[in-house]
Amino acid sequence: MERFVIQKKELLVFCQSIMLKKGCSSQEASDVAEVLVEADLRGIFSHGVARLRRYINHIDDGIIQVKTSPEVVRETENSMVIDGKSGVGQHVSKYAVHLLKKKTENSGIAICSVRNSNHYGIAGFYAEQLAKDNIIGVSLTNTSPLVVPTFSKKAVLGTNPIAVAIPLKNNMFLLDMATSIVSRGKIEVYNRRNQIIPTGWAVDEFGNVSRIPDKVLKAIKENKGGLLPLGGIGELFGGHKGYGLSFLVELLTKGLAESDMDQGLNTKKSGICHFFAAIQMELFGQPERIKKHLSEIVDKIVHSEKAEGQKKIYIHGEKEFLEKKKSEEEGIILDENTVELLFKLSREYGVTLHYQNDSAKNQ
Amino acid sequence: MERFVIQKKELLVFCQSIMLKKGCSSQEASDVAEVLVEADLRGIFSHGVARLRRYINHIDDGIIQVKTSPEVVRETENSMVIDGKSGVGQHVSKYAVHLLKKKTENSGIAICSVRNSNHYGIAGFYAEQLAKDNIIGVSLTNTSPLVVPTFSKKAVLGTNPIAVAIPLKNNMFLLDMATSIVSRGKIEVYNRRNQIIPTGWAVDEFGNVSRIPDKVLKAIKENKGGLLPLGGIGELFGGHKGYGLSFLVELLTKGLAESDMDQGLNTKKSGICHFFAAIQMELFGQPERIKKHLSEIVDKIVHSEKAEGQKKIYIHGEKEFLEKKKSEEEGIILDENTVELLFKLSREYGVTLHYQNDSAKNQ
Repeated sequence: MERFVIQKKELLVFCQSIMLKKGCSSQEASDVAEVLVEADLRGIFSHGVARLRRYINHIDDGIIQVKTSPEVVRETENSMVIDGKSGVGQHVSKYAVHLLKKKTENSGIAICSVRNSNHYGIAGFYAEQLAKDNIIGVSLTNTSPLVVPTFSKKAVLGTNPIAVAIPLKNNMFLLDMATSIVSRGKIEVYNRRNQIIPTGWAVDEFGNVSRIPDKVLKAIKENKGGLLPLGGIGELFGGHKGYGLSFLVELLTKGLAESDMDQGLNTKKSGICHFFAAIQMELFGQPERIKKHLSEIVDKIVHSEKAEGQKKIYIHGEKEFLEKKKSEEEGIILDENTVELLFKLSREYGVTLHYQNDSAKNQ
Repeated sequence: MERFVIQKKELLVFCQSIMLKKGCSSQEASDVAEVLVEADLRGIFSHGVARLRRYINHIDDGIIQVKTSPEVVRETENSMVIDGKSGVGQHVSKYAVHLLKKKTENSGIAICSVRNSNHYGIAGFYAEQLAKDNIIGVSLTNTSPLVVPTFSKKAVLGTNPIAVAIPLKNNMFLLDMATSIVSRGKIEVYNRRNQIIPTGWAVDEFGNVSRIPDKVLKAIKENKGGLLPLGGIGELFGGHKGYGLSFLVELLTKGLAESDMDQGLNTKKSGICHFFAAIQMELFGQPERIKKHLSEIVDKIVHSEKAEGQKKIYIHGEKEFLEKKKSEEEGIILDENTVELLFKLSREYGVTLHYQNDSAKNQ
């Protein structure tokens, strides 16, 4: 297959057009496009436009409601509970972060619990929005169940990511991590390549470690077995810690967000909830001085002596920012499956896909 | 060796007496005793009275200053920066949490950065204090360097624990985890038993995984090699995530706390800093209703189907609370090394140690 290259702008327009065709408002469509394409730019393809089909299905199924407006249902000067009204996750979350930022102008700290939302893309996106303004940003979300608790054989927790962004002198620390070892997407890749997976990524329907990706994926489909939390199986390598982090995210998102709600009103709802927090750096001192000090700590860590055979010690977010810079200059290189999906959507919705291939520019 | 049993009250009195002999104020002495004995009650012996010798040495070396008062050096209605004045970590931290709790009464949320403190014992202790009052509690601390970043061979990060406590209906979720796979103490135990350690807990002076505890401990002593972050070596099992969590704690503790400080004033200072956060549950709704909902989520998780051969799925903190209950009823059973230390201290400081052994009560 030829190498498929697409420019950021073209991918944004395409993604937006598809969402408009699905009935989204222009703001919703551009929010989805912005966050999905941002993931592709950074090489986080599992959270990029490859998700479009799932979003479309969710709109068709009524899980995602288009043209809705999130509503603040509870509020203090430094906190909010927002009802996403089953709206588009990215739109709901950008709105939440926007209000959060405004709140911190007066109160220094603000937190927000979002109920009744949908998949919001990369968790780090929202933390990063805050960190751009000298704010420490936290973004958490629950996700569909895929992860088995320590000593369990049933996936009752999501890959529940934790994202925290901390502004530095010339860049930022951006931790954005699923609390499982790997994503389901990674196991699917091994399956397509007919490769066995490393010992300890996932368990089968009995809760035993399995190296056969097909077996694991089938178990997950039948709501048995699943991915292992960070730290792996049992407690020997700290699996109970990864389980604890996933558990924590579940409680801070779904736990806090839906506790004040009458259940069962919309049986179709996704159950996806978020938690955001924002802390102004100036609470601790003069921001430029803090960032200088933080950067000194960072330098000490990333310039510590490299292990044998290693070339570089990274700060979190760095790899993705480097990838983004490259993609913005040279275009985004999507994988075969995603390209296929885009062509299909292009035909289905009559939306032209502007891209380049190896030899010639195809407009 | 005979089985050594000591009652909570006796251990508290002993610990307190030793600290008084070292010049602590009565409040400092009782704070140290309370937090150390709490760890022993829960079976977290690495953070219990076994630490007494290290505390004593730090007082002798001037790293810990006795009879000091922590000072709030920066403050808003929902935030504080506290200077611990090189005081006793437990005393400084209990003071911080006390003020934090008061702040949340008005503001709902409050955070606190503590600079210039010392080892504060189990991180979870402070989070738990908050959770007892329907407050979500967060407690973070940096620690002495023991952990190597991903792709590094030098320990430049601490085991930097993360503790979060969330109140539930009849109990609480209490996550208290080092961000390394294991503690140095665990490797010392293997060394004493002449056992090899599991592959992936630690690296040698070249940054390669080593199973020889003696080699690892020597490397650590020479400021080379060290413990691996949660997720292990490299990125295959998510080692970069554990590294990221440790990194995050370093930035939120030492990074935020010392940024506004003129360096080099007290060259003896430990460099230990803390970060605390407190969030009133009522920001999200009626606390009893929230706790009920949180407990429903917890039940679903801990009652999910157990993996083959497993008897129980735990909620975080549960094992320690069960252990505490047992120790309060039957007394605390300390290990040989700790008992030896206590006898030594008893002789050194002329403080009587009241305990029982297997056959007879020895007063």
